[in-house]
Amino acid sequence: MNTFGKRLTLTTFGESHGKAIGCILDGVPAGLHIDEAFIQSDLDRRKPGKSKLETGRKEDDKIEILSGVFEGLSTGTPIAMIIFNTNQKSKDYDNVKDLFRPGHADFTYFHKYGLRDYRGGGRSSARETAARVAGGAIAKLMLKELGVEIQSGLCEVDGIKGNVQDFEYAKSSKLYALDPAVEAAQEKAILTAKENHDSVGGVVLTTATGVPVGLGEPLYYKLDAVLAEAMMGINAAKAVEIGDGIASTHLKGSQNNDEITLQGFKSNHSGGTLGGISNGDTLIVKTHFKPTPSIFREQQTITTHNEEVTCNLKGRHDPCVAIRGAVVCEAMMALTLADMALLNMGRKMDHLKAIYPETKKSV
Amino acid sequence: MNTFGKRLTLTTFGESHGKAIGCILDGVPAGLHIDEAFIQSDLDRRKPGKSKLETGRKEDDKIEILSGVFEGLSTGTPIAMIIFNTNQKSKDYDNVKDLFRPGHADFTYFHKYGLRDYRGGGRSSARETAARVAGGAIAKLMLKELGVEIQSGLCEVDGIKGNVQDFEYAKSSKLYALDPAVEAAQEKAILTAKENHDSVGGVVLTTATGVPVGLGEPLYYKLDAVLAEAMMGINAAKAVEIGDGIASTHLKGSQNNDEITLQGFKSNHSGGTLGGISNGDTLIVKTHFKPTPSIFREQQTITTHNEEVTCNLKGRHDPCVAIRGAVVCEAMMALTLADMALLNMGRKMDHLKAIYPETKKSV
Amino acid sequence: MNTFGKRLTLTTFGESHGKAIGCILDGVPAGLHIDEAFIQSDLDRRKPGKSKLETGRKEDDKIEILSGVFEGLSTGTPIAMIIFNTNQKSKDYDNVKDLFRPGHADFTYFHKYGLRDYRGGGRSSARETAARVAGGAIAKLMLKELGVEIQSGLCEVDGIKGNVQDFEYAKSSKLYALDPAVEAAQEKAILTAKENHDSVGGVVLTTATGVPVGLGEPLYYKLDAVLAEAMMGINAAKAVEIGDGIASTHLKGSQNNDEITLQGFKSNHSGGTLGGISNGDTLIVKTHFKPTPSIFREQQTITTHNEEVTCNLKGRHDPCVAIRGAVVCEAMMALTLADMALLNMGRKMDHLKAIYPETKKSV
Amino acid sequence: MNTFGKRLTLTTFGESHGKAIGCILDGVPAGLHIDEAFIQSDLDRRKPGKSKLETGRKEDDKIEILSGVFEGLSTGTPIAMIIFNTNQKSKDYDNVKDLFRPGHADFTYFHKYGLRDYRGGGRSSARETAARVAGGAIAKLMLKELGVEIQSGLCEVDGIKGNVQDFEYAKSSKLYALDPAVEAAQEKAILTAKENHDSVGGVVLTTATGVPVGLGEPLYYKLDAVLAEAMMGINAAKAVEIGDGIASTHLKGSQNNDEITLQGFKSNHSGGTLGGISNGDTLIVKTHFKPTPSIFREQQTITTHNEEVTCNLKGRHDPCVAIRGAVVCEAMMALTLADMALLNMGRKMDHLKAIYPETKKSV
Repeated sequence: MNTFGKRLTLTTFGESHGKAIGCILDGVPAGLHIDEAFIQSDLDRRKPGKSKLETGRKEDDKIEILSGVFEGLSTGTPIAMIIFNTNQKSKDYDNVKDLFRPGHADFTYFHKYGLRDYRGGGRSSARETAARVAGGAIAKLMLKELGVEIQSGLCEVDGIKGNVQDFEYAKSSKLYALDPAVEAAQEKAILTAKENHDSVGGVVLTTATGVPVGLGEPLYYKLDAVLAEAMMGINAAKAVEIGDGIASTHLKGSQNNDEITLQGFKSNHSGGTLGGISNGDTLIVKTHFKPTPSIFREQQTITTHNEEVTCNLKGRHDPCVAIRGAVVCEAMMALTLADMALLNMGRKMDHLKAIYPETKKSV
Repeated sequence: MNTFGKRLTLTTFGESHGKAIGCILDGVPAGLHIDEAFIQSDLDRRKPGKSKLETGRKEDDKIEILSGVFEGLSTGTPIAMIIFNTNQKSKDYDNVKDLFRPGHADFTYFHKYGLRDYRGGGRSSARETAARVAGGAIAKLMLKELGVEIQSGLCEVDGIKGNVQDFEYAKSSKLYALDPAVEAAQEKAILTAKENHDSVGGVVLTTATGVPVGLGEPLYYKLDAVLAEAMMGINAAKAVEIGDGIASTHLKGSQNNDEITLQGFKSNHSGGTLGGISNGDTLIVKTHFKPTPSIFREQQTITTHNEEVTCNLKGRHDPCVAIRGAVVCEAMMALTLADMALLNMGRKMDHLKAIYPETKKSV
Repeated sequence: MNTFGKRLTLTTFGESHGKAIGCILDGVPAGLHIDEAFIQSDLDRRKPGKSKLETGRKEDDKIEILSGVFEGLSTGTPIAMIIFNTNQKSKDYDNVKDLFRPGHADFTYFHKYGLRDYRGGGRSSARETAARVAGGAIAKLMLKELGVEIQSGLCEVDGIKGNVQDFEYAKSSKLYALDPAVEAAQEKAILTAKENHDSVGGVVLTTATGVPVGLGEPLYYKLDAVLAEAMMGINAAKAVEIGDGIASTHLKGSQNNDEITLQGFKSNHSGGTLGGISNGDTLIVKTHFKPTPSIFREQQTITTHNEEVTCNLKGRHDPCVAIRGAVVCEAMMALTLADMALLNMGRKMDHLKAIYPETKKSV
Repeated sequence: MNTFGKRLTLTTFGESHGKAIGCILDGVPAGLHIDEAFIQSDLDRRKPGKSKLETGRKEDDKIEILSGVFEGLSTGTPIAMIIFNTNQKSKDYDNVKDLFRPGHADFTYFHKYGLRDYRGGGRSSARETAARVAGGAIAKLMLKELGVEIQSGLCEVDGIKGNVQDFEYAKSSKLYALDPAVEAAQEKAILTAKENHDSVGGVVLTTATGVPVGLGEPLYYKLDAVLAEAMMGINAAKAVEIGDGIASTHLKGSQNNDEITLQGFKSNHSGGTLGGISNGDTLIVKTHFKPTPSIFREQQTITTHNEEVTCNLKGRHDPCVAIRGAVVCEAMMALTLADMALLNMGRKMDHLKAIYPETKKSV
């Protein structure tokens, strides 16, 4: 239940204020060059404390590979990675030990398990997503060898939408903004909310180019369905759209269908999938994040002892989780696509026959 | 890859124009009264040809249980169910044998597998969803014993939104409309599109009441994430929202958090999940369906032999797939919740200790 | 829980005296020629009533393919197969309705599920293995394309061991005997037991030749481990040996190691696996079957109402289940190897890179 | 592929000469007291270098829990555990870098993956079993709460069989010998082989008492089948027997059936399972281990460059892997039974109805 994927599986562990977080990525094909600097760079993009727009918790998030790599190459055995927690301030959470923070998982974890690690949200903390980013980075390395590139950025913050999708610009933007024209307004919305001890929502656009035709396993491991699961499973996500998504429901069939020519599809309303299988066009996914539930305002709640109390949070929190969420969206798309690419091997008898004689020669 | 669920698993088979479609539902606890009439009634709600708003293909969709039930009760062994296809008109598809219908899975199936059953879309036909409805009906019977009730209806058609959510009304509406005030306009939109040989989109609202606290397995089998997968996996679905969904991204954290009192949550922006686990409040999911890709207008496409051609469809198709999609949404929510209920058994040592002595006494 | 395999999955359904038994085989690559006559011929080898050595229940065991095959080729979608039960004599079981037959699963099913289909053992009947044989036959067709051949036969009956392994001879032997020299003695042992209303055990040798190097997924889906599970999961199996098996524990390391030359291994004590991965040599598995628990002698037992009673069985039963078990062993080995072959695709980055450009050209 | 179990899953990582080995155990119910000293004591029983009968590699095998435990109790989240490697002598392996040690997995790993970590066998080293023992120890803690106790010992070494099964005696025996009468002879056989630079095989008996009736999921996750997989998956295992195993094939049905009385079964030929489900009697499994493939004699082999060479091993190795294998057998039986206990929750509707109202009260 802490494992994502079927053929490339990411199993994560760790709590916000425990000793360490980490993961085991299993199923990476042998012979992949494991670029540790690249993995670290993705973690650095996700790590907190890079600007005023993010939580003040500063974590180095230094990744250490424990297994599965030999002389720089993947060996086909599980790759374990670990990040030690260094900057916990568990005392910040003493006052929430017995109460359920509104909008958080405190209530549900407590009732599901009968007890919980209350420090920083324990397992339900978004800190766990660092492990996803580490696994996702290796998935990206795999995909790069197949010509697939994944990008992301914020297309909307607090209802302020951009019109332009400039992924290059987003890379150097503090809030990974896709549209330079609205970036300042989006930033201001975040800072205003922060000053008001409040938070805002945002929307992440994630795309993949160079996706081969044929990824996605009908009928219950469809590419679009698994992407929906992957994205909705990120902390604070509340909606997922594929391609035109909601907008497509306002079109007629004659407007929404992507006609086909020998040069490719004439449009991409579908967002790169047909029948749950990639069609070779750009894969387009939008993930909608609610405003951070951690706010510094008085809120009504109850305790584990069934008393009504006022909740006053301390701690350090992102005023807009969508920003760092963008890096996590990339990771989840990468993990999904790499898993699908592996599952797709062997879909035709021709492919099995092409691979197996080579193996036999070895004897 | 044709299996949904982890502990309660639905594995389906069958093509639109093959001999039969069906499923194996595995993991149903023993001792559940299997009400065949109820299963049939759900199939009847989904079956085509009930009104002008739907495809003219008339199928009886008579379900037959082949195993797993003895003297009216589930035995704990797999329940196989079968529906024989009776009203195929495969000739309608002779003219699309070699071309890719725009908006359909023809293109991707052909390139993934190297060949395809072109008759009526083969495996990618929405006809397969009858098997989901059959499995979902048994899941509903399980959930009913736990006090969970699932309902659905259309909250939007072709951009025409309702304001009221009257699930009782929807039951007798030809288009499962939730708001009587807009039903006529919604129906007209569908019929107008049909007259224009076109199609429209729609949005299905699905809810579950009486859901126990604690369903959903963090971190990669969360309730909301799996619901997103379940719904996005339905033919023609393009977006999924949980609770307020997209609207929540326009709220501040202080507006979006659901405060807690001893009487329960003061609001339900979350849609019944916190941290991916049910919180006991009503579960709310919206599924957005694109307009049916099968339209009777000339469309540009290519053939399997790489020729550009004009596609002129024949056959019988729904002008708005969202209508019958509503019944499928219920089924997928039921399968998800029943699976989660089973997975949740054993989350606490107390529960194991409560069950096991009873077992031992039997020796 | 009724599914075998990870990438090629066989899900079976059905009870001994229900309407039908059958299976869904999912994951078959597209483009495989599905030879229905071959599938039927394997079922015919397994079906009961071919000689006095077997149960008198006569079933046609006619297999019908319901899906997943189009114009003689697999399409990559699930292949459902069904066998209708025709020769049930459920009345034979009226007298065991309330009691637990010694050596049978009656006791455990009743206590696990709280109820059971008592007719002919219900789900626990070896009749279900017909579905395995059907699925295994398709796996054999897959493997044949890769140059793998699977054979089986009885190397021991009632303690009477053969010295020769003549698989060709076994094919035409009523008891699939591998050694013509002991066949008569083995047959006599079976018939003598039958006359005494008793039963005997036997040992099946199953081999695969032409197995590519590299099949088996360390560390928890090893080839030998999964074969052990596959064989031990067959009704009445009580022990499984790989290669020299128990005999190897009596050797010194210097005797048991298979030295390696450029012409191959100098011996095959290992039975074709090293570290859980196929080494290209002949795969050798022995499966030991207990004597049939259904005997026609008085036995002491209890009822579901906790009364001590004498059990007097009626019905028709094999005096030596190992005979027909041989065909099931082949099926389970075929399913295991075909699953492993598919899982093994993508173990090297080189293979992914070899397959994916081909896919891209299609756009 | 590095994960064992379905509901309680153990995923392991690590190579013999890498930084660390470890595991993630997922699915442990919340509220279990995690006794770290007990986990360590099981690791100490397995760790090398305790006597002349074992490899000279001395590892502290200190286990560190990284997550999933809070204030001494399991929280229901994944439990990660790590053991750092401290006493590697990788130089010992320089001379086998390019050759395939007979009886080892070098050949198959190299051909499967195209490269391998040759140091100490890399991933295929029995060192990985320390992670299984750590996970198994927690499974034992779970089972203890349900009244299940697991024990093991050697019943045979180099063909020298004992007649007595004294598990208490085995605990303090250097070779975990079950029969004091043959212990000295068994020890001598091991030391003689060691002096001759050779190795011997052995047989481990593992039992579980107090097992509830009903564990095991028919038809493809049967208790006996999964135990066979679990045991055969241990390094050097070549055969597995359940109950009387091979001996039962020499009995008549009338001898082998366990008759039933109101006081329980009159015999236990079955070894505690019927139809793949536990029957409440003592669970009995025998695992046969081949002689250690690492011997210090000249052996013929080939290199990765296809040259025939003589293999002369260095390093430190157990002359009889069955000894430490006994502790691993316990772990695998514990993991299997705990997994089965969790899977078995929810087999009856009654159990769901008993648990769920309690959950609802919490809202």
